[in-house]
Amino acid sequence: MKYSAPRGTVDILPDSCEKWEKLERILRTVASNYHVREMRTPIFEHTELFNRAVGDTSDVVTKEMYTFSDRKGRLMTLRPEGTAGIARAYVENKMYALPEKLTKVFYMGPMFRYERPQNGRQRQFHQFGVEMLGVESPYVDVECMMMALTVVKALGLKNVTLHLNTLGDADSRDAYRAALQDHFRPVLGELCSDCQARFDKNPLRILDCKVDAHHPAMKSAPKTIDFLTDSAKAHFDKVCELLDMLEVDYVIDTNLVRGLDYYSHTVFEIISDDPKLGSGSTVGGGGRYNGLVEELGGPATPGVGFAFGMERLMIALEGADEEETAGIDAYVMPLGDEAKDVAMQIVAMLRANGFATDMDYASRGLKGQFKSADRFKAAYSIILGEEEVQGEFVQMKNNRTKEQTKVAFEDIVKTLEKGLGLE
Amino acid sequence: MKYSAPRGTVDILPDSCEKWEKLERILRTVASNYHVREMRTPIFEHTELFNRAVGDTSDVVTKEMYTFSDRKGRLMTLRPEGTAGIARAYVENKMYALPEKLTKVFYMGPMFRYERPQNGRQRQFHQFGVEMLGVESPYVDVECMMMALTVVKALGLKNVTLHLNTLGDADSRDAYRAALQDHFRPVLGELCSDCQARFDKNPLRILDCKVDAHHPAMKSAPKTIDFLTDSAKAHFDKVCELLDMLEVDYVIDTNLVRGLDYYSHTVFEIISDDPKLGSGSTVGGGGRYNGLVEELGGPATPGVGFAFGMERLMIALEGADEEETAGIDAYVMPLGDEAKDVAMQIVAMLRANGFATDMDYASRGLKGQFKSADRFKAAYSIILGEEEVQGEFVQMKNNRTKEQTKVAFEDIVKTLEKGLGLE
Repeated sequence: MKYSAPRGTVDILPDSCEKWEKLERILRTVASNYHVREMRTPIFEHTELFNRAVGDTSDVVTKEMYTFSDRKGRLMTLRPEGTAGIARAYVENKMYALPEKLTKVFYMGPMFRYERPQNGRQRQFHQFGVEMLGVESPYVDVECMMMALTVVKALGLKNVTLHLNTLGDADSRDAYRAALQDHFRPVLGELCSDCQARFDKNPLRILDCKVDAHHPAMKSAPKTIDFLTDSAKAHFDKVCELLDMLEVDYVIDTNLVRGLDYYSHTVFEIISDDPKLGSGSTVGGGGRYNGLVEELGGPATPGVGFAFGMERLMIALEGADEEETAGIDAYVMPLGDEAKDVAMQIVAMLRANGFATDMDYASRGLKGQFKSADRFKAAYSIILGEEEVQGEFVQMKNNRTKEQTKVAFEDIVKTLEKGLGLE
Repeated sequence: MKYSAPRGTVDILPDSCEKWEKLERILRTVASNYHVREMRTPIFEHTELFNRAVGDTSDVVTKEMYTFSDRKGRLMTLRPEGTAGIARAYVENKMYALPEKLTKVFYMGPMFRYERPQNGRQRQFHQFGVEMLGVESPYVDVECMMMALTVVKALGLKNVTLHLNTLGDADSRDAYRAALQDHFRPVLGELCSDCQARFDKNPLRILDCKVDAHHPAMKSAPKTIDFLTDSAKAHFDKVCELLDMLEVDYVIDTNLVRGLDYYSHTVFEIISDDPKLGSGSTVGGGGRYNGLVEELGGPATPGVGFAFGMERLMIALEGADEEETAGIDAYVMPLGDEAKDVAMQIVAMLRANGFATDMDYASRGLKGQFKSADRFKAAYSIILGEEEVQGEFVQMKNNRTKEQTKVAFEDIVKTLEKGLGLE
């Protein structure tokens, strides 16, 4: 019987894990730079939450969720995205009543969608996302987009552009919805069945349809930007003005209508032409979602956020300033049984002094052990055989300079400190 | 409609998240000290894996697993523990064929068991665990236990003891099983129905039973240590000898028989009398499991490991060298609309120079903004109103010394570098 990882999931082995840790360190550094703090919500939630928050006309909810009933028959779903959980936790923990009106948080972790595993899409994938809740202001939209841009720049991605659109406020959306329905009504019979269902519930979703993408009515569809109320227009103008002031390259993309039900005002995507990702690749995106917290039973609360697929960010990171991964400080190489016992004491002493240390446990000869020292990028090899044990000294080899010296047991720590420049 | 986190799960809000991050940093530091590298396996696995690896007589498998069928009808289970996934990945990725014979890895993350949420037990809980696979040697058992001890010491736990027992090899266990069955056969009718089921399948589990814990036959049960083969005894003696050599306090606890089917030789627990956890609390434990990798279709491979519940480690961490969490470097305080635009430029400049920076987006007065600077532990407040904008300067207040000075825009970075001692 062979066991394998579930289809659409992967094991992250140690070498690759180091790169994930590097990505996470970079993301944490940017978050701290923007004073955005981490928050963690459960891996699964009540299914209702996603039906409500993500919208029950979305593909995610209708086709892709991992849903199961627990032993009491309650429906639970592995989270397909991160915003719903954060918004639910914001309400449940009454974070809207915190003295600090603006809550800026990030999340990072596994998400689950039952998709055909192709084009590098995983069923367990990972997202880094940011949510800024509690203050309605174009400044916060810009804060959010600036952070998204800083993330991709910190990863070394080239040729990055911010694509931007506005969906306006509730009144703008109502007017736009009506105009969209008027526009598509004459050709409704030519659209796919999904689009026909979307027509009444959420006609904006028609613009996202992959099946009907080339229907002539798509190109001529009305644009959100022509249906803005005065205040929605003022919000968008201020966003653009601030981006100009901060000298950010952006493109107003009137076709950008992100799929989720709860967006309003600013929506954006980060597009990169970096050859690593391929021309015109979307790295991530986000937008404002003023209705969501209220939808979940909280007070009316403005929110804006973005999310990046971390698997994409990992590709972005490939080759970016490929620094050497740090090796261990010392590899202790015993020859013979007696030496092994002493080696273990030396290892304990070095670790207690803060040195990353390992030793051979497989009783190999010198050659095999030197290979390990090499693979582990050990700064020093510490060799001891019978003679050394008797004389209470070791041979310490600086693996960079290849210099080897005889060092008494009690001088090993000092020698290592000196050799590693820690004195 | 109110939405809540599923029963037995919790939200980790930013303040608490910082403590989790601190715990994770400490665990990573210890792991690097021991040259143990991270590995990540999926959140769910084929249900069969846990049936096979954890053992289908265990409570975990029979009562506590979150199992669901995916859209193709395959049974999947949210991982209830971490060893099975690591062992599966070790086989699937042929890690036994790596040039380095000994694989030392750790994992850290969420696990899921459907238990009654009481005594602080969560249905989504978190474990940190270590597995050392590929070399059969008492030295590796000791390496593993030393690391477990280093973890609890690094968290500042006091009065920590290593409790130790051996289950011996396959021959020792067969002899012991038979002796246990002979011992319990006369009183079998007095034991609980679970124990009666265990009698044939895995009589060692009877010793773990909470229901029958006080039955007189428990106390008089035979001990594993009396049924060891010569080589199993030699292994255990060497473990004890090495612990003595390393001056580790330990107790041989012949009642210690950990519940999982796959243990052999050394089993251990870390017990603490630290008042934070309560007297005689088990912090974590582990043992050797030589059969597991083979059970999962790999070559015969020795393994030894341990796991800690991270929620327990969080309690251990409470109050341990309560250092101040770092605040931000600068909080920019604009007064008036025009100042807000300029503030945003200053914020962008400071962040680009690596300073953790935030500003007020809620258009509050000075008093409210100073409160935020305080809550954010900002090293500097940077104040600018109309007059400052016109004159292209700011007021920079050192929040420690309370000293306030007038600084030209172009000197802000320099002043901050100087004030934070980064020159």
